[in-house]
Amino acid sequence: MTLMEHLLYANERYSETFAQGRLPRTPRLQLAILTCMDSRIDPDRILGLQEGDAHVIRNAGGRASDDAIRSLVLSYRLLGTRYFLVIHHTDCGMTKITNERMRDELLHDLGADVSHVDFLPITDPDETVRADVQAIRSSPMIRPDIRVNGFVYDVTSGRLRQVV
Amino acid sequence: MTLMEHLLYANERYSETFAQGRLPRTPRLQLAILTCMDSRIDPDRILGLQEGDAHVIRNAGGRASDDAIRSLVLSYRLLGTRYFLVIHHTDCGMTKITNERMRDELLHDLGADVSHVDFLPITDPDETVRADVQAIRSSPMIRPDIRVNGFVYDVTSGRLRQVV
Repeated sequence: MTLMEHLLYANERYSETFAQGRLPRTPRLQLAILTCMDSRIDPDRILGLQEGDAHVIRNAGGRASDDAIRSLVLSYRLLGTRYFLVIHHTDCGMTKITNERMRDELLHDLGADVSHVDFLPITDPDETVRADVQAIRSSPMIRPDIRVNGFVYDVTSGRLRQVV
Repeated sequence: MTLMEHLLYANERYSETFAQGRLPRTPRLQLAILTCMDSRIDPDRILGLQEGDAHVIRNAGGRASDDAIRSLVLSYRLLGTRYFLVIHHTDCGMTKITNERMRDELLHDLGADVSHVDFLPITDPDETVRADVQAIRSSPMIRPDIRVNGFVYDVTSGRLRQVV
């Protein structure tokens, strides 16, 4: 069985017992979570959430990129969320890179000139989560009454720690 | 109990039975998934995945934005993924917006001039998933041997349909 066959088989099983067909589009807890794409993090399990509870936005690092802010704006304006959680984590792959190394490698391997791309590396998750909460709070597109908090998730203990 | 207390209580429970502390940073299935932030979608459950299996990148619509491509590049170069799945879905909130409406509203409500922001609206998920798979495949930062496929997820049946 190929990977694709395996995944489609799993989806077949999932759809057979599917009972969420009438969930509303609006997240039940008025909550949006921004976190890292890391495979060890399952935001729903970490926070005890069910399908329908919260928007989940994920990228490399869980950073408040322009695209993450676009998503948060659509989340609160279209679908009524009021609380944003930003979750960075320990042992993040983004602490292993620099912009210089990424740009050099892509130029060398693929001939891609990406000198304009910021890969948003992380040195200290406490620092970046603070900076990203601040970036969201101060965005001109985010209404000031939206609550934004920041956490660091420990991938070895499964535990969240509030930073801001 | 406030929402925040509720979530931290749930995390406390989660960490008490946490047994994933030794998972490697590298996704086990060499898989990265790009999908929508929609609260009705749990990519892990839909595809029968476990913690540690795959990177999950999510934004409004599941679009191949610059930031999603940044994340996919880091995913394959740093952490060895080889398969990318792009999953758009039925009844997406992004089919309800236009750039004009979003820009007008943000200017009117918050005085924010966001005439430069593309909110990446969707008209037909089959079309956008095709376009986004193509955008990823043709990015100069993506190695040509990475396999990229596109699906539409039906939120009323729980079923995935391959488009490309």
